Amino acid sequence: MTDALKTLSEHRCFGGVQRFHEHTSREIGLPMRFSVFLPPQAGQGPVPALLYLAGLTCTEETFMAKAGAQRLAAEFGLALIAPDTSPRGAGVPGEAESWDFGVGAGFYLDATQEPWAAHWRMESWLMHELLPLLAERLPVDSTRLGVFGHSMGGHGALTLALRHPGRFRSLSAFAPICAPTRCPWGRKAFSGYLGPDPAAWHGHDASLLMRARADAPYPQGILIDQGLADKFLDSELMPEAFEQACAAVGQPLSLRRHAGYDHGYYFISTFMADHIAHHARQLQGHAPA
Amino acid sequence: MTDALKTLSEHRCFGGVQRFHEHTSREIGLPMRFSVFLPPQAGQGPVPALLYLAGLTCTEETFMAKAGAQRLAAEFGLALIAPDTSPRGAGVPGEAESWDFGVGAGFYLDATQEPWAAHWRMESWLMHELLPLLAERLPVDSTRLGVFGHSMGGHGALTLALRHPGRFRSLSAFAPICAPTRCPWGRKAFSGYLGPDPAAWHGHDASLLMRARADAPYPQGILIDQGLADKFLDSELMPEAFEQACAAVGQPLSLRRHAGYDHGYYFISTFMADHIAHHARQLQGHAPA
Repeated sequence: MTDALKTLSEHRCFGGVQRFHEHTSREIGLPMRFSVFLPPQAGQGPVPALLYLAGLTCTEETFMAKAGAQRLAAEFGLALIAPDTSPRGAGVPGEAESWDFGVGAGFYLDATQEPWAAHWRMESWLMHELLPLLAERLPVDSTRLGVFGHSMGGHGALTLALRHPGRFRSLSAFAPICAPTRCPWGRKAFSGYLGPDPAAWHGHDASLLMRARADAPYPQGILIDQGLADKFLDSELMPEAFEQACAAVGQPLSLRRHAGYDHGYYFISTFMADHIAHHARQLQGHAPA
Repeated sequence: MTDALKTLSEHRCFGGVQRFHEHTSREIGLPMRFSVFLPPQAGQGPVPALLYLAGLTCTEETFMAKAGAQRLAAEFGLALIAPDTSPRGAGVPGEAESWDFGVGAGFYLDATQEPWAAHWRMESWLMHELLPLLAERLPVDSTRLGVFGHSMGGHGALTLALRHPGRFRSLSAFAPICAPTRCPWGRKAFSGYLGPDPAAWHGHDASLLMRARADAPYPQGILIDQGLADKFLDSELMPEAFEQACAAVGQPLSLRRHAGYDHGYYFISTFMADHIAHHARQLQGHAPA
């Protein structure tokens, strides 16, 4: 039963329901956890959904507990889906030695290098297994999906949105890793998961993916918020690289730089309302399509 | 330097600032932690403040990370103060053996029994040391304080508000322990901290304290929210006891019972806006005084 969906806990929240699930993933070969918020409107039929990808060290719980998104999702009638950030329990030697590689640090890609290739298949899990499973089992309209994320998960949102054209209709990020082929977090992860040849990394770098486009993939615009007191801004995140790539291909981008804000969920929760509204406009047609 | 206020971390949040502090408490004889949110309005002068008391196993971080209150506090111009739930590091034998007694379970009272009496002085710490310290050091108007809390912290809010008349001008609670002399959590805590004689417990039971009043101490009303899917409702919380006590003395009480909601922060965050508005009305005079 690879498609059995186990409910670990369930909590009423803003008139909807917050659930924590586990299923045995065929792509990853292990039990994987994720959380889902269904708004009250899901009782009347399928609703659009937002996939949120979390950052290093986070789990499927972080976003649901700390971001304050359910209030807004209930208001706009959007489902929220938050997967865990890596396989757990694979028993790969060294998998838990670093906070920025291995457990809690899947980088939303399929590893090609041993010993990671067998289980570290986050992209295939999300795109080919979890989203189809949820579309089948939950009142979610799979033609109206948006994706967003934070830090490593912002990288995940930008790269999955660019690698799977048409799958997501709206895109945003909080403090994303924008040029992972050039920063320490990205180079460590890509070396380990994808091997030493940087040519193999290019397909997972949001700024390079955007530059390779002939036209703007999100003509209604991409929203990115970035705190200027974020200690990872210059060394790891490099939003200017993505900004330049968007400019080069005519992709509308609202990159907002916020004085005083740092890298954590106090920053994210502050600007959550703008992100949910951004997705709602593009998924529900309240703005020109 | 018993009154030195150490800032452990600081985060910009909803235009205000979220800080985590530590000071060496003379009442408790140990370093104690607490968190403060200052809204943008605190830049112009003293603002009213809400003291939030958390439940069993929580810390000074729980409320600030999970409750979604800063957005509303920033809107209404209220400071938020959340202390830790017990002394930590006292080294009392057995202090960490139970999740409902000792560390993380201070019950907001002063213990009279050994080995707890030396350090477990939460009531004196809060009322005689922390609130005066914050009024002196922060742009907080100490004549306009409200108090609220959850579960054990709901017990703390109700009992401190009734034991210190006039100190708080507004009062609310989420799923409070309303009759601790009659429930397992309360009897265990009171036996340990206050001794075996139930006569010593009465002054820390919100329902008994309310019944002992000659008149209504909060004529503008008390707000309590309680989920009906809360697994602790019947055995530990007993809101009907407080409801009856309020009726007996003519204390206006809005006790709202919510179908499907449980005991956690998904419940609390859902109704946070109503609590913040309740306090704002009473502290800022938007309603009849």
